Amino acid sequence: MAKKITSRKENYSQWYIDIVQNAGLAENSAVRGCMVIKPYGYAIWEKMRDALDKMFKDTGHTNAYFPIFIPKSFFSKEASHVEGFAKECAVVTHYRLKNDPNGKGVVVDEDAKLEEELIVRPTSETIIWNTYKNWIQSYRDLPLLINQWANVVRWEMRTRLFLRTAEFLWQEGHTAHETREEAIEETERMMNVYSDFAQDWMAIPVLKGVKSESERFAGAEETYCIEAMMQDGKALQAGTSHFLAQNFAKAFDVQYLNKENKLDYVWATSWGVSTRLIGALIMTHSDDNGLVLPPALAPIQVVIVPIFRKEEQKAALMEYVDSIYFELKKAGIVVKVDDSENYSPGYKFAEYEMKGVPLRIAVGPRDMENNNVELARRDLLTKEIISRDNLAEKVLALMVDIQRNLFDKARGMRDAMSYKVDTWEEFKKQVNGEGGFVYAHWDGTAETEDKIKEETKATIRLIPIDGVEEEGKCVYSGKPSKRRVVFAKAY
Amino acid sequence: MAKKITSRKENYSQWYIDIVQNAGLAENSAVRGCMVIKPYGYAIWEKMRDALDKMFKDTGHTNAYFPIFIPKSFFSKEASHVEGFAKECAVVTHYRLKNDPNGKGVVVDEDAKLEEELIVRPTSETIIWNTYKNWIQSYRDLPLLINQWANVVRWEMRTRLFLRTAEFLWQEGHTAHETREEAIEETERMMNVYSDFAQDWMAIPVLKGVKSESERFAGAEETYCIEAMMQDGKALQAGTSHFLAQNFAKAFDVQYLNKENKLDYVWATSWGVSTRLIGALIMTHSDDNGLVLPPALAPIQVVIVPIFRKEEQKAALMEYVDSIYFELKKAGIVVKVDDSENYSPGYKFAEYEMKGVPLRIAVGPRDMENNNVELARRDLLTKEIISRDNLAEKVLALMVDIQRNLFDKARGMRDAMSYKVDTWEEFKKQVNGEGGFVYAHWDGTAETEDKIKEETKATIRLIPIDGVEEEGKCVYSGKPSKRRVVFAKAY
Repeated sequence: MAKKITSRKENYSQWYIDIVQNAGLAENSAVRGCMVIKPYGYAIWEKMRDALDKMFKDTGHTNAYFPIFIPKSFFSKEASHVEGFAKECAVVTHYRLKNDPNGKGVVVDEDAKLEEELIVRPTSETIIWNTYKNWIQSYRDLPLLINQWANVVRWEMRTRLFLRTAEFLWQEGHTAHETREEAIEETERMMNVYSDFAQDWMAIPVLKGVKSESERFAGAEETYCIEAMMQDGKALQAGTSHFLAQNFAKAFDVQYLNKENKLDYVWATSWGVSTRLIGALIMTHSDDNGLVLPPALAPIQVVIVPIFRKEEQKAALMEYVDSIYFELKKAGIVVKVDDSENYSPGYKFAEYEMKGVPLRIAVGPRDMENNNVELARRDLLTKEIISRDNLAEKVLALMVDIQRNLFDKARGMRDAMSYKVDTWEEFKKQVNGEGGFVYAHWDGTAETEDKIKEETKATIRLIPIDGVEEEGKCVYSGKPSKRRVVFAKAY
Repeated sequence: MAKKITSRKENYSQWYIDIVQNAGLAENSAVRGCMVIKPYGYAIWEKMRDALDKMFKDTGHTNAYFPIFIPKSFFSKEASHVEGFAKECAVVTHYRLKNDPNGKGVVVDEDAKLEEELIVRPTSETIIWNTYKNWIQSYRDLPLLINQWANVVRWEMRTRLFLRTAEFLWQEGHTAHETREEAIEETERMMNVYSDFAQDWMAIPVLKGVKSESERFAGAEETYCIEAMMQDGKALQAGTSHFLAQNFAKAFDVQYLNKENKLDYVWATSWGVSTRLIGALIMTHSDDNGLVLPPALAPIQVVIVPIFRKEEQKAALMEYVDSIYFELKKAGIVVKVDDSENYSPGYKFAEYEMKGVPLRIAVGPRDMENNNVELARRDLLTKEIISRDNLAEKVLALMVDIQRNLFDKARGMRDAMSYKVDTWEEFKKQVNGEGGFVYAHWDGTAETEDKIKEETKATIRLIPIDGVEEEGKCVYSGKPSKRRVVFAKAY
């Protein structure tokens, strides 16, 4: 029997877990909080990584690799950074095991204690800026535009597959610049790269903006971000880009000789997205039948299922199937034929529906006779029988259409879940009810922000970058405000 | 001034270090034994990774990702594995830091001690087989063909950039099969994939064979390997492929229902190559002028350097340069134009020579007038002036020629450094002198192998897979032997 999943209405959290499991994306491992990314989930990550990597390279960045370990003392060099990151982390204290003298396996060898503990990187600003010190002498060495694809570890207490795990995969860009303006420009450029990626590849519309001071990255002067809205009315931070000013340059003494031949500290940015994006992808598009994937990121864009009753029909049918396969493949479509005989066509249909394959092509002897195929769209759950002629062309057009439809649908949902709210009663009702993005006035103080969070669990997701000036009164304190900010409960 | 490097004759080890540093490949980090892979070095790794990844996928494998941490107890489950790997490793004992009560930065929070220590993976057989237990129920789940690209940590005491580092990047394939024969076939297939990659991409000829029992992977029944010969007469193990029999399946209780409906343990393989390959690449082809790269793996295949004296010559010359650039780019050649004015042409020539760019194109006003370009080959250090007509075609042919020439040269060197030796005196003289691959008879005992290692530091690199049967006497013990094995000192 085909696998069943919990409906969103019944239990949204369980629905998410069911999809991750039944679509074969990831699972919990024997190590608390660490996940195993299964082949199908990893294939989605590979597609994301390749697309992002190209966008980074097209904007002048190159990749490098820095150590997974960071000496403990490095964290103390940037005051706010240590508060934000060094606390909940994996600490390496020893470098050797030995046979248990009592004969029970192996134990830590106390003689092999490190002089200084090493932290498994939760993020790499410190080790990278310690390295940049030797790479940057003069303005000729700038800008330095480097990205790293890596695993990082943050000792989270409550974990959820993809959304919050102790170990996750990500990329982190770390750049160095001559001037404040150039660094800010880079910070904004990368936020825009993330936003373009979310919209064009993931079919996810995002809001762009900056974080309030309390929500900023530990060590940043400004944190830009993109925020997406999930189907349950909760927001998800999908990417951040930080303007680090001269904080890390000062902490690690990275100075350069400028064009006036004077020493100055360099200006920095850092920016990252992670496997969390897979969580956003799942929760934006999927339905009660399983995963739904945009064609641009689908590991299989089209699956062809041949249907025959008698073995003697198979040979001729497979010839027809193969001709379709090669035509689509030649057109650059990622296509798979599933002619395995272990499972029935019905089982396969349900399986590929669960896995979110954008388009299914079924062909039986009658379709072949009539020079037809049956197409089933995963996004609309519609079926139609069409002529096999010019099939690659039709399928390519469908890929574009499905991608656009998913984006439009997600944007429609997001817009329908965006509210302007002007009173505290309304605010509480909205946030505790349907949720969504709540545009409200805020007096700009951390005190009010904290109070709102305390009373409703909603946080300021961002201050919109393209927000209009508008006189108003803070929804909580009634004090004057010049623009609305976006509140939501968030993942 | 251009950077100088130590000559091989003067000091081979320093020559290697100078190339790694001056070509901008890698450097030591603040963390003992861990390296920073710099952008140019990482770009070579990306090329290797992409080529290998395609070869793995073409042979039916998919990628996945498993946790970086392994519970300590997992290592004890496979008896020989724990001896081989669990000893020298990074041990995570705590998951939190706190502010030092004495006000000096942060210290380990003793309240946050892990119940069971976690080991930073030195290799992933144990965590992966613990996962496979849930993935494999019946023969329908087999073969399971998975690869992982990851970082691993082995606490090495003496480290050398790329060749032996505490942390390194690698891929590790882990497959599960129904039968012994199928698993052995897979083990051999992957050795051949590695050998093809070494020869076709790295232009490095390799020997193929199996390890002696003492040199086997901890937990393997047979270790296949490829071995390359470096310019200093030392061998380098470039890749290994292990037949693990049912050892890990038994240790982690991974049984499957076979076609006869009976439970049986599955058969396993694992295989890997690492950033160590970059060390092999450097030491095979480079010369006293710096790095030499085969075109197939060069991050820049062709560099174009415009040469002009007066600013007013630049515009016209750059038009000529651009036309060449776009023609080469269109032909799929990775080409860079260096028209920066911070450095002289002579400096640039030395710089790209140091970086091993296979082909340099220099163009000045006179070349342009005559519709010519100057080509300089990195492998032969030759220069010639040729017509600009059909340049892409000529350059493509040169890429093929350079790739082949590097392979031929490396094979010539390897062959010249391969010796048949029949007496112990000769053996010692060869091994302690020029080195190289020494083909000698061995009586097949670990005792003799140990003695030879003790007295000469030479080890059995492999028992050739295509070795001919030949009656002889062990070079050390004089006992009968049926085939020669290959000895060498090794990296």
